[in-house]
Amino acid sequence: MDMLTPMGSETLDLPFRPPKPRRQGLTLVIDSGVPAGTLADIVESAGDFIDLVKFGWGTALVDKALGRKIAGLREADIGFFFGGTLFEKFVYQDRFDDFRRLCQSHNCAWVEVSNGTIPLSNVTKAEYVSRLCTDFAVLSEVGYKAPQRSAELAPKDWVECMSQDLEAGAALVVAEARESGRAGICEADGQLRCDLIERILDSGLDRDQIVFEAPNKDLQARLVRRLGPNANLGNIAPADVIGLETLRLGLRSDTLLVIEGDERARYA
Amino acid sequence: MDMLTPMGSETLDLPFRPPKPRRQGLTLVIDSGVPAGTLADIVESAGDFIDLVKFGWGTALVDKALGRKIAGLREADIGFFFGGTLFEKFVYQDRFDDFRRLCQSHNCAWVEVSNGTIPLSNVTKAEYVSRLCTDFAVLSEVGYKAPQRSAELAPKDWVECMSQDLEAGAALVVAEARESGRAGICEADGQLRCDLIERILDSGLDRDQIVFEAPNKDLQARLVRRLGPNANLGNIAPADVIGLETLRLGLRSDTLLVIEGDERARYA
Amino acid sequence: MDMLTPMGSETLDLPFRPPKPRRQGLTLVIDSGVPAGTLADIVESAGDFIDLVKFGWGTALVDKALGRKIAGLREADIGFFFGGTLFEKFVYQDRFDDFRRLCQSHNCAWVEVSNGTIPLSNVTKAEYVSRLCTDFAVLSEVGYKAPQRSAELAPKDWVECMSQDLEAGAALVVAEARESGRAGICEADGQLRCDLIERILDSGLDRDQIVFEAPNKDLQARLVRRLGPNANLGNIAPADVIGLETLRLGLRSDTLLVIEGDERARYA
Repeated sequence: MDMLTPMGSETLDLPFRPPKPRRQGLTLVIDSGVPAGTLADIVESAGDFIDLVKFGWGTALVDKALGRKIAGLREADIGFFFGGTLFEKFVYQDRFDDFRRLCQSHNCAWVEVSNGTIPLSNVTKAEYVSRLCTDFAVLSEVGYKAPQRSAELAPKDWVECMSQDLEAGAALVVAEARESGRAGICEADGQLRCDLIERILDSGLDRDQIVFEAPNKDLQARLVRRLGPNANLGNIAPADVIGLETLRLGLRSDTLLVIEGDERARYA
Repeated sequence: MDMLTPMGSETLDLPFRPPKPRRQGLTLVIDSGVPAGTLADIVESAGDFIDLVKFGWGTALVDKALGRKIAGLREADIGFFFGGTLFEKFVYQDRFDDFRRLCQSHNCAWVEVSNGTIPLSNVTKAEYVSRLCTDFAVLSEVGYKAPQRSAELAPKDWVECMSQDLEAGAALVVAEARESGRAGICEADGQLRCDLIERILDSGLDRDQIVFEAPNKDLQARLVRRLGPNANLGNIAPADVIGLETLRLGLRSDTLLVIEGDERARYA
Repeated sequence: MDMLTPMGSETLDLPFRPPKPRRQGLTLVIDSGVPAGTLADIVESAGDFIDLVKFGWGTALVDKALGRKIAGLREADIGFFFGGTLFEKFVYQDRFDDFRRLCQSHNCAWVEVSNGTIPLSNVTKAEYVSRLCTDFAVLSEVGYKAPQRSAELAPKDWVECMSQDLEAGAALVVAEARESGRAGICEADGQLRCDLIERILDSGLDRDQIVFEAPNKDLQARLVRRLGPNANLGNIAPADVIGLETLRLGLRSDTLLVIEGDERARYA
């Protein structure tokens, strides 16, 4: 694989990582307001590992460097979208058409639709997916941001919401974990809801269309151990892009033995 | 409001944020030793949201980029000061006059006075406020850094200390939470001491002169929900400036519904 | 001390910090995939405080900015090495000679040897130390990355492993704490294993050859309080370099009173 050859990997057996544009092993980065120069710096040295960048929640309206950031991402063939909370804000104020125009004005190829914060049924959310997927590739997020509300969403409901969104035309569905890793697919104490993960994986949905948010190293390691090097992972902090790539390749303690084929290490 | 108009906010109802120089809705950033280029980058794209930068504790004596950082802040009309611990260090070594000279040599407009670490009564601290406020605008910090000592400071004592400092001439009083959010106005487990906050708000002191340290997103969100978009908040990490601005504007899940007027969400 | 004189320290009594190259008071930084520009920025303003940089675990194989980073470190007279996990990966794949060649190809002066992840007895690890110390200065890490396995390594075993490694020719032995501070010399809940630290200090080994990993401020402060300003500390995040220096000098609350000679504060 070209991106690793310069530095010694020719002598190690490493898992195959498909080059961009890829359908498996996606890394979705979240920009929570990182300085533009830092983002550019990361894109320069780790852009091959980044598939999409999310401008988290409503930061796109506040960040004066947005235009500069978008230009840099375009140049590196990295897609981008605005966080689902911004969609919800516009919907809550009954300004859905303005949201569409905002995304068009930035030439967004991707948009995210969610109901993590405002009262919005999944059926209605799926209708928004339909309305947007004519103009954009749509990411649809499933799961709530309030830990208790999220915990009450049963595994079968998760799968049903994901199915509805995919049937409505979503290109990718994202399983919520927030930036904290303490809601959605995680318990309030940060533990992964393993039963939920297994239910989603057993659902028959196309795994390539599912992205799991994994905002910290423990979640990333657990999901790589369970799903393999080419897990689709989201809410990756810019500073964690290189670290995640090493987890995928078995170049960090947390996944080394599993990637080497030691099954006892898989559920550690 | 000029700073938001470029990017779609003209179509959203957002809370009013006064432009700089402002008396309400202050954001005080803490520099814990951030690289100079990163700080410059943040100031460039988010400088409108930053009112003051504190060079945390004694970093000013160690950071070789201090001069370059100060020059950049001046250019962006952002005030700065040295952390109160530096004041305490000089006082502990009986070198108060040297502290004053140090601040003068950097043309500091602001200085911070505190007794969070060394044994120093509030009465004596207030005398230092008096002595410094002839030459500088003085921030006076109330609260201790040791969690247990801090917990023993009763709400009425906090209010009394704040009153003393303001009467002595402090321009702003800062309620301590450390960089950890685990002392001062917070319990050792990170919870906000709500009774203390309410007692301070009910004290009759001028709220515009009170700054609450809020070093993490949960504290920022709680204080914005309680105090509104224009809460005065301190110890904001440089990387959180944009995130805090979205919390103030209701563009992030944690405050969206409250800013939209949903009272049930206020105490969540 | 030259590095502090510019900014007011001439008027404060501060502990002596030896200039580079030093044998005591080492700061070993871990690069977990920091952007190259950020690292360069830190080196420029805080390079005097950094003795060695570790490219954490296998990031060296993934980080396209590696060459640029190494060049910058060389220019600042800062040594560097690849994390021990990379050594373990090569050994696990039975490619030890390739590891040696990789390090030679980057003109590494230092290499790290460890058995934190793969099954490898300390005796065998010490043999690798012997084989490498003819070409490189060797850092040898003691302690496991899995919290439970690590907890079962008794204090006397730690000392024995350290002795073996030093006798085999290691220049420095590093006591493991991971990047999380939740394994090795730390309990799974992050507390420092004080009995272990004391046993190591009482062992008669040369303290100048022992480095304690201290990846967060609490550990750094505890170790500076116990070992003094010139403790050898590792796994320091680039963003914490200036903060650590202030801890060493007693310019931050956590160590101010101890450095000033207040013995009651030593075990706080």
